[in-house]
Amino acid sequence: MRTPFTEAFGVEYPIVQGGMQWVGRAELAGAVSEAGGLGLITALTQPTPEDLTKEIARAREITDKPFGVNLTILPTIKPVPYDEYRHAIVDAGITIVETAGSNPAPHMDFFHEHNVKVLHKCTSVRHAVKAQAVGVDGISIDGFECAGHPGEDDVPGLILIAAARKEISIPMIASGGFADGRGLVAALALGADGINMGTRFMCTVESPIHEKVKQQIVENSELDTELIFRTLRNTSRVASNEVSRETVRILNEGGKFEDVQQLVAGVRGVKVYENGDPEAGIWSAGQVQGLIDDIPTCADLISRIVAEADEIVNERLSALVGAGEQVQA
Amino acid sequence: MRTPFTEAFGVEYPIVQGGMQWVGRAELAGAVSEAGGLGLITALTQPTPEDLTKEIARAREITDKPFGVNLTILPTIKPVPYDEYRHAIVDAGITIVETAGSNPAPHMDFFHEHNVKVLHKCTSVRHAVKAQAVGVDGISIDGFECAGHPGEDDVPGLILIAAARKEISIPMIASGGFADGRGLVAALALGADGINMGTRFMCTVESPIHEKVKQQIVENSELDTELIFRTLRNTSRVASNEVSRETVRILNEGGKFEDVQQLVAGVRGVKVYENGDPEAGIWSAGQVQGLIDDIPTCADLISRIVAEADEIVNERLSALVGAGEQVQA
Repeated sequence: MRTPFTEAFGVEYPIVQGGMQWVGRAELAGAVSEAGGLGLITALTQPTPEDLTKEIARAREITDKPFGVNLTILPTIKPVPYDEYRHAIVDAGITIVETAGSNPAPHMDFFHEHNVKVLHKCTSVRHAVKAQAVGVDGISIDGFECAGHPGEDDVPGLILIAAARKEISIPMIASGGFADGRGLVAALALGADGINMGTRFMCTVESPIHEKVKQQIVENSELDTELIFRTLRNTSRVASNEVSRETVRILNEGGKFEDVQQLVAGVRGVKVYENGDPEAGIWSAGQVQGLIDDIPTCADLISRIVAEADEIVNERLSALVGAGEQVQA
Repeated sequence: MRTPFTEAFGVEYPIVQGGMQWVGRAELAGAVSEAGGLGLITALTQPTPEDLTKEIARAREITDKPFGVNLTILPTIKPVPYDEYRHAIVDAGITIVETAGSNPAPHMDFFHEHNVKVLHKCTSVRHAVKAQAVGVDGISIDGFECAGHPGEDDVPGLILIAAARKEISIPMIASGGFADGRGLVAALALGADGINMGTRFMCTVESPIHEKVKQQIVENSELDTELIFRTLRNTSRVASNEVSRETVRILNEGGKFEDVQQLVAGVRGVKVYENGDPEAGIWSAGQVQGLIDDIPTCADLISRIVAEADEIVNERLSALVGAGEQVQA
């Protein structure tokens, strides 16, 4: 497949593995890139810039093809040495960075001076327009369906992708709600040049999380997510379990962050992924769980998506669209 | 175009004008059907069954092609003579009914005995499965993006359509978030057999609402809606204005229906549409406002959507999907 995204970012298929805290490690990013997609190592999952350098080297053992690094910039309690992470990224020869979380402007000169292309992920048309204006090389537009941070606008991809495309002339991929060839074709029809998938890649053989969490994603339906931290205007979509439902309940009843801090901090993310108890804490998963029924390798997943997209375009859609005219002519 | 929906319901294009209170009158339904789509007269917009009979006759003056009637069954303060409306529908020779609001089971025998096909609109996979089981002839699956009643699950079309398709084998159209050929192709790719549009048809020349409301839809973006009655678990998506925002505020602060009843009842719907002040009361509009930029005739709108869908499938998608393989071969 060839789209403005594959051309600009030098990958075979317009399928990106989204940056995911605790999940975006060498095994996964390497496997996705080796299969022709764009894998992303999550920088801040590595405790130090030196660890990131080692993680990039580990991915290089898996693939010779390009992979990238996600650099998410969010308010944190402990200051993060972003400048050192940036240097680790370019010193390791990485040529693609996904930024997310806040305005990428402060990083653009540095990355472009080092020949790094920047793909910026955001959740609204106005932020996409701003990122395009400060010179990013691609936009990843992320709808309400997504795992992690959907923002506060609640605009799903069906509308957000088409609305963003009206304003965005650089390569743009769609994120949130994608798991298969149907979604890829829908995204392309709506005006995107490819898709980003998070939850779907979490649920692959190479994904470095506990098997029981993957099985839970397979079992979950599109109804099994919660939006936590909504009242704090820092919404995050996570898998529904007792911890996330309790978090929502406390905050909806007027609780403050302090009231749920212990609930979410002691057990979140990495511990669930490592210990394999999907009920033990907060972990991200999107509504697209409802479309995930198996745990394939990244290579099988990507080739299946590409084959399904091809079949949809060249058989299903070609047969439906235009067929009536021929019959009536 | 030919899809399982156009075949089963006997229309030229798989484009339905959704049932809309105060908007689904003869002028609009007649124009949509005359243009090859499926227009729907909203039964309960007519004060009596006799008025519905007259409204159907008015639509027959506009088109010889099939149009349908929407029968929405919701709890009401005044009892509605549903049985009389049903008889008015079949006595007028209507062959297509859209049901919505609750389980269509009590109406199925009557309609099928009178050779009426039933298209049931619902907002979740489980309700779609139930409707299929009780024998409806088609499903209209309605995502979180939609105007009016999105339900309480908050699953957008991108996921809901594909998830429903896994369970639904009868003709199924997608509703919520559609306004153009991009959306039609996306819906078909996701597994739907057509689309339903509400807000987009509100904003046409033939739509029997005040010009200023249409202009407001054109001006509004995807951000300009509110979800009212959320705390009452009777959510409705309406245009954002001072009245709807105040309604949300009062209910979010613990108010009861009684606290907003006067606010929403005195000025809602029909008065806005007739008087033309978009700020004066509650009126339905979907997030798809962000994709609506003009006020075309229904014929121009439908032919544009069909032409755009054709171009997307036969030019854009065909060029993108499969292109890489050819280049590399």
